[in-house]
Amino acid sequence: MEGNDRGERIREAALRLFARHGYAAVSMRQIATEVGVQAGALYLYIPDKQTLLFDMMRSQMEELLAAWDELPAAGAPVARLEAFVRFHICYNLARPDAAFLGAMEMRNLEPENYRAVARLRDGYEAELAAILRDGAASGAMRVPDVRLATKAVLAMLNGVTGWYREGGRLSRERVERIYWNMVRRAVGA
Amino acid sequence: MEGNDRGERIREAALRLFARHGYAAVSMRQIATEVGVQAGALYLYIPDKQTLLFDMMRSQMEELLAAWDELPAAGAPVARLEAFVRFHICYNLARPDAAFLGAMEMRNLEPENYRAVARLRDGYEAELAAILRDGAASGAMRVPDVRLATKAVLAMLNGVTGWYREGGRLSRERVERIYWNMVRRAVGA
Repeated sequence: MEGNDRGERIREAALRLFARHGYAAVSMRQIATEVGVQAGALYLYIPDKQTLLFDMMRSQMEELLAAWDELPAAGAPVARLEAFVRFHICYNLARPDAAFLGAMEMRNLEPENYRAVARLRDGYEAELAAILRDGAASGAMRVPDVRLATKAVLAMLNGVTGWYREGGRLSRERVERIYWNMVRRAVGA
Repeated sequence: MEGNDRGERIREAALRLFARHGYAAVSMRQIATEVGVQAGALYLYIPDKQTLLFDMMRSQMEELLAAWDELPAAGAPVARLEAFVRFHICYNLARPDAAFLGAMEMRNLEPENYRAVARLRDGYEAELAAILRDGAASGAMRVPDVRLATKAVLAMLNGVTGWYREGGRLSRERVERIYWNMVRRAVGA
């Protein structure tokens, strides 16, 4: 139990540091200091910094996919698109550091690790692409290029974590609603 | 002349390396190797890595603003929005490394440098915000929150450089046209 707790605390500390300074700028020693252990003790839990980044980014993508899979998949394309937009914003606003890591640190994964995380990310993007494809096929949406629209919608939604401040001018619900309306109109629904 | 050429070559090499590996992961020594000079020679042109990053990001924002200012500013809001969308995509696709740097490395600017670059970036965002505000005021657009819509549109457009590949499936003109249609509809125009 204690070991698992410490492993968890190490991952939390590393995530905070990576999100604030970037993976390349953070040393294992800094992570140890943040957790309050000796650098040597870190290696009982984490073989190296790359493995730490990879484990984090893979787990984050797996958890995102699992959370999405828990939502009901049935329904008309426009309703599924609304569910996706609200889910994506809500999920990422609750985990700003993880969202930031996902946006910034793919390039610092070694090739094999990159491919594994990219495969999971592509699986998530495919969920949105399927909704847009169904929407276009049923005539409920106007999507001249599904792949491009998928990228465009995700980029728009991912931007939220970059500027949204908790307790600021806009509530999460209002942000979700405005983005949903923009996405809905953007795909002609 | 030779000195200017070398300064220019150093900035080009540094931009390539920063875009590929990230600012924090690149050393002055690596930049020198990429240019083909001794590390000591680099310091004749560049006082330090932070100054190099700051000079680059400031110049890039100044050049972006100058290029935008050259376009005619008159016209109806919807026409100005189309001009902005096409300009932004076209400009960034021609400079993918600079666009990537602008998206990724703001956090590595020291506070004073950050403020200077952020001020320029805010000035550029204000150009888009003014178009959306005029569009909403004239009834040509539906924009419930100008600041949010500005962020949403820019995030969508900035995403293009992340996935677009020259000579790939889609021409730049087609990408510009599809994005313009998505943006136009997203703001209810």
